[in-house]
Amino acid sequence: MKLKNKIKRLKEIKSKLYKKDFLLTWEKSHEDLEMILEVADILKELRDKNISPKVFQSGLAVSIFRDNSTRTRFSYASAANLLGLEVQDMDEEKSQIAHGETVRETANMISFLTDVIGIRDDMYLGEGNKYMREVAAALDEGYKDKVLPNRPGIVNLQCDMDHPTQSMADLLHLKKEFGSLENLKGKKLVMSWAYSPSYGKPMSVPQGIIALLTRYGMDVELAYPKGYELIPEIVEIAKNNAKESGGSFKISHSMKEAVKDADIVYPKSWAPFHIMQERTELLQKGDKAGLGKLEQRCLAENAKFKDWEYNDEKMKLTKDGKALYMHCLPADITDVSCTAGEVSAETFEKYRLKTYHEAGFKPYIIAAMLFTNKFKNPAKTLNKILKRGLKRKGI
Amino acid sequence: MKLKNKIKRLKEIKSKLYKKDFLLTWEKSHEDLEMILEVADILKELRDKNISPKVFQSGLAVSIFRDNSTRTRFSYASAANLLGLEVQDMDEEKSQIAHGETVRETANMISFLTDVIGIRDDMYLGEGNKYMREVAAALDEGYKDKVLPNRPGIVNLQCDMDHPTQSMADLLHLKKEFGSLENLKGKKLVMSWAYSPSYGKPMSVPQGIIALLTRYGMDVELAYPKGYELIPEIVEIAKNNAKESGGSFKISHSMKEAVKDADIVYPKSWAPFHIMQERTELLQKGDKAGLGKLEQRCLAENAKFKDWEYNDEKMKLTKDGKALYMHCLPADITDVSCTAGEVSAETFEKYRLKTYHEAGFKPYIIAAMLFTNKFKNPAKTLNKILKRGLKRKGI
Amino acid sequence: MKLKNKIKRLKEIKSKLYKKDFLLTWEKSHEDLEMILEVADILKELRDKNISPKVFQSGLAVSIFRDNSTRTRFSYASAANLLGLEVQDMDEEKSQIAHGETVRETANMISFLTDVIGIRDDMYLGEGNKYMREVAAALDEGYKDKVLPNRPGIVNLQCDMDHPTQSMADLLHLKKEFGSLENLKGKKLVMSWAYSPSYGKPMSVPQGIIALLTRYGMDVELAYPKGYELIPEIVEIAKNNAKESGGSFKISHSMKEAVKDADIVYPKSWAPFHIMQERTELLQKGDKAGLGKLEQRCLAENAKFKDWEYNDEKMKLTKDGKALYMHCLPADITDVSCTAGEVSAETFEKYRLKTYHEAGFKPYIIAAMLFTNKFKNPAKTLNKILKRGLKRKGI
Repeated sequence: MKLKNKIKRLKEIKSKLYKKDFLLTWEKSHEDLEMILEVADILKELRDKNISPKVFQSGLAVSIFRDNSTRTRFSYASAANLLGLEVQDMDEEKSQIAHGETVRETANMISFLTDVIGIRDDMYLGEGNKYMREVAAALDEGYKDKVLPNRPGIVNLQCDMDHPTQSMADLLHLKKEFGSLENLKGKKLVMSWAYSPSYGKPMSVPQGIIALLTRYGMDVELAYPKGYELIPEIVEIAKNNAKESGGSFKISHSMKEAVKDADIVYPKSWAPFHIMQERTELLQKGDKAGLGKLEQRCLAENAKFKDWEYNDEKMKLTKDGKALYMHCLPADITDVSCTAGEVSAETFEKYRLKTYHEAGFKPYIIAAMLFTNKFKNPAKTLNKILKRGLKRKGI
Repeated sequence: MKLKNKIKRLKEIKSKLYKKDFLLTWEKSHEDLEMILEVADILKELRDKNISPKVFQSGLAVSIFRDNSTRTRFSYASAANLLGLEVQDMDEEKSQIAHGETVRETANMISFLTDVIGIRDDMYLGEGNKYMREVAAALDEGYKDKVLPNRPGIVNLQCDMDHPTQSMADLLHLKKEFGSLENLKGKKLVMSWAYSPSYGKPMSVPQGIIALLTRYGMDVELAYPKGYELIPEIVEIAKNNAKESGGSFKISHSMKEAVKDADIVYPKSWAPFHIMQERTELLQKGDKAGLGKLEQRCLAENAKFKDWEYNDEKMKLTKDGKALYMHCLPADITDVSCTAGEVSAETFEKYRLKTYHEAGFKPYIIAAMLFTNKFKNPAKTLNKILKRGLKRKGI
Repeated sequence: MKLKNKIKRLKEIKSKLYKKDFLLTWEKSHEDLEMILEVADILKELRDKNISPKVFQSGLAVSIFRDNSTRTRFSYASAANLLGLEVQDMDEEKSQIAHGETVRETANMISFLTDVIGIRDDMYLGEGNKYMREVAAALDEGYKDKVLPNRPGIVNLQCDMDHPTQSMADLLHLKKEFGSLENLKGKKLVMSWAYSPSYGKPMSVPQGIIALLTRYGMDVELAYPKGYELIPEIVEIAKNNAKESGGSFKISHSMKEAVKDADIVYPKSWAPFHIMQERTELLQKGDKAGLGKLEQRCLAENAKFKDWEYNDEKMKLTKDGKALYMHCLPADITDVSCTAGEVSAETFEKYRLKTYHEAGFKPYIIAAMLFTNKFKNPAKTLNKILKRGLKRKGI
């Protein structure tokens, strides 16, 4: 379809993203999500055609990362830069930001000339998303009192509950792979736990995936060894979504069984909910000895499930032996990054470039989240961008 | 007043800011300071009206921070970004910068395509401001010898003597609160020491405040427990300023007495001059044991003055019981950030948002300092900006 | 010559820089190097005349620095910013990047909206340049598979073999000092080892200098105490270059003898090839004790050659007693940065500002490398820049 027509079609999507933070996909309507996907797609096409969608002459895009990150950091920086905003890191190394009373002060202090804030906070259960809402409330207050000329929009770059920029990039990838959202109906997707030699990986990716993809009529199967439960409330959301969308949602306990006839597999390690709870309590107490013991216990527990590796043997069981393999990267690859991991080297290699494509949608998903937060009528603004025809590169 | 007229009025202000570093307010004329206030105000209005004052297509704004900072860092970044400059941090973690012979080399090495340099160096008495002048001299030499195509302007983002971006933001806040600089005449401002559980807070804020606000005909009272003296030369400046401006300057030793009938109170902790001298000597010797002992001695001394907390009881004594409370933030708030601090929680809460507004002027004060350093005729350039009418956000 | 004519003349230079990484000067043709010099010169003149050569509305310039750096970091940032790109650091502190299998993944993950990548990796012998080629191969694959919309260009910001941005800046400095490249013919340049109290300085500068300057018909003499050999293959390249260019290349073992009648001297410390090999092996084994012993051995060995200091006595022996002194900075200056170093304070002072000018070409050399990598027809694009006449500063 022509770019002009793609933009025109946006007018029919009744989304309510303007001035709304993007914190959890399940707080967003179908039309909100559709709008994000479409705008991301259009922004990508504009960039690919060397048309600059720069819509800011100045403005900061603050990033708050509470742990290291390469791909999300670069995705966010790329998205902000594409629209004309300058990233300013609020690293904890550089300056302290804390929970509690000082959040509302700091949130305002960094926002006087800020348009958007991206936050990644996935370390403690019950904390990350809560923290984002604290920042949001502080910004609301500052904006209401005219401390801030604009209300900076917040984008969740991963929290304890959801990883919406990842799951939405995954969804756009699926849309491209299968031709349309419509085509996802009836497709079987297996979100499976997988073995990893590390401990304590966040639950936000599997939670984000089951909560989002159940909305598109897919048959979503969540597979994990007994004991590796996710946050129950989010599993409930997935169940309800599946009902509403005409798909299905199922929990099972064998990777090998689960992947049978799957169209899509997403094998990925995580630490279970109850362990995360225990870990969060120990962290809050500062109990290092306890944390050490917990890690040992968990690694021993994990080691019982080394056969939860996705490999050619399991791949053969999938639909036509060629289910689409997905991963948020980096994967723990057996004999590459570790001696036993989430996926075998040969299987990963078959889909390696596909996972790069999958990741490549993230900057545009983020850009679309920023864009729809800041512009009331995306179609109108995108049309102006198209008409202006400013070259991104060259004169 | 209309923006157009505000800009027109600038023509009458005979300031000499062009190509001059901004290191200490007391080196600047009344008209210099007026120009900064007016340009800051105009830049803020332009931004609020979505008109971009971008005047650079490229150029670096180097920041040299010798200690952590959130609000000044973001203020500087916002100011530079607003005008079209890109912040490049010169962190000591990233690259060494030292006093002495290498300063002049490094100053040139980071300045080939640099327009402005913001420096924060408030750790050692007698060092911070001196360091800025070393950098300035090195840039003068490099510019004279055509090593540098432009002479980058230097802005003092806090030193051992002054904190001009803070005091000027405070002045603009007062101007807005009281309607005009003229209205500040005869108003009583109390710059008071306050108790804090920490030790070694810089003197630059109280020094900056007394040296600047005595120029506006105010009755400035500096209150502190005996022994908590500021740098004597700067106190002298404040005295002389008060004489010249028709205001008054007084030193007293009871917060409770001082705040009586005050229009404005600024309760803030600092470490006294003689302690800073002692500390600087110990730091230069690398005497850690000595520093530890000094800290213990000072904390014990501070603890005698826990009643130097600003609270509702004291607030009642001020003019109509509602003096404007000011603080450079973050404040040590009793029962919030500490068990006993500079201000009670309930009193702080009454003025919390006011302190955010106060801080909100800082990015524009910095932007005005950069702007007036780089443009000879601010009125002319601002007029062009107004006529151009480039949208900051949107097309 | 007029800028317009300078640009016109570019059309005659048959360079092949478009879409080619700049990794080693000896992989580049004479015309490639000439093009870089000319474009650097033109970009500098444009900047000096307040004409903005901004050619990107957005895009990242990623920098990967594996050790601290001030001048190269700022040179790269300045170059990128001048053209409209935003620097995004990929610090190892911020995010892990490793050799091996993960390089290809990370290289793609940081490149979705990236135009150029500058890499500095000079720690281990046989690793730095190899790493750049690993990144390059990964980008080629990603671009071929349409993971990346553009193939980011790579610029070597210093590796174990070459330091092309330094040597090219040095060459441009020489061209300016002597009037033309033609005038360099028959000039005697001495690249000499010099004493330093530190150990393990990279060989990339002397290697870069002898391999590049032998291409211009100069009489290049490489002087060092026996045992301080450079990488043999690169010495061979210098020899062959000298033959082809009609100059000469000679190795000798006395700084005092070597500098006789020299037109240019470049006294600089380095650690010898065989020590670098030994050091790399120990580093790879993680043998800290072994590294400590090696350092002691080397420092003792170095100490035998404290008379390899460039000073007024030696300077008198040069052509007319006034050979041009060069250094990549920072130099180890006797009685300034150390008690005994590469150069005496009085001699260094005579050429100090010259070394600043020398360093000042680096941002433009880098900008020219980025520019010629991204624009197929530099003359055409530069002409458009000239015609557009966009002010860099001001409206």
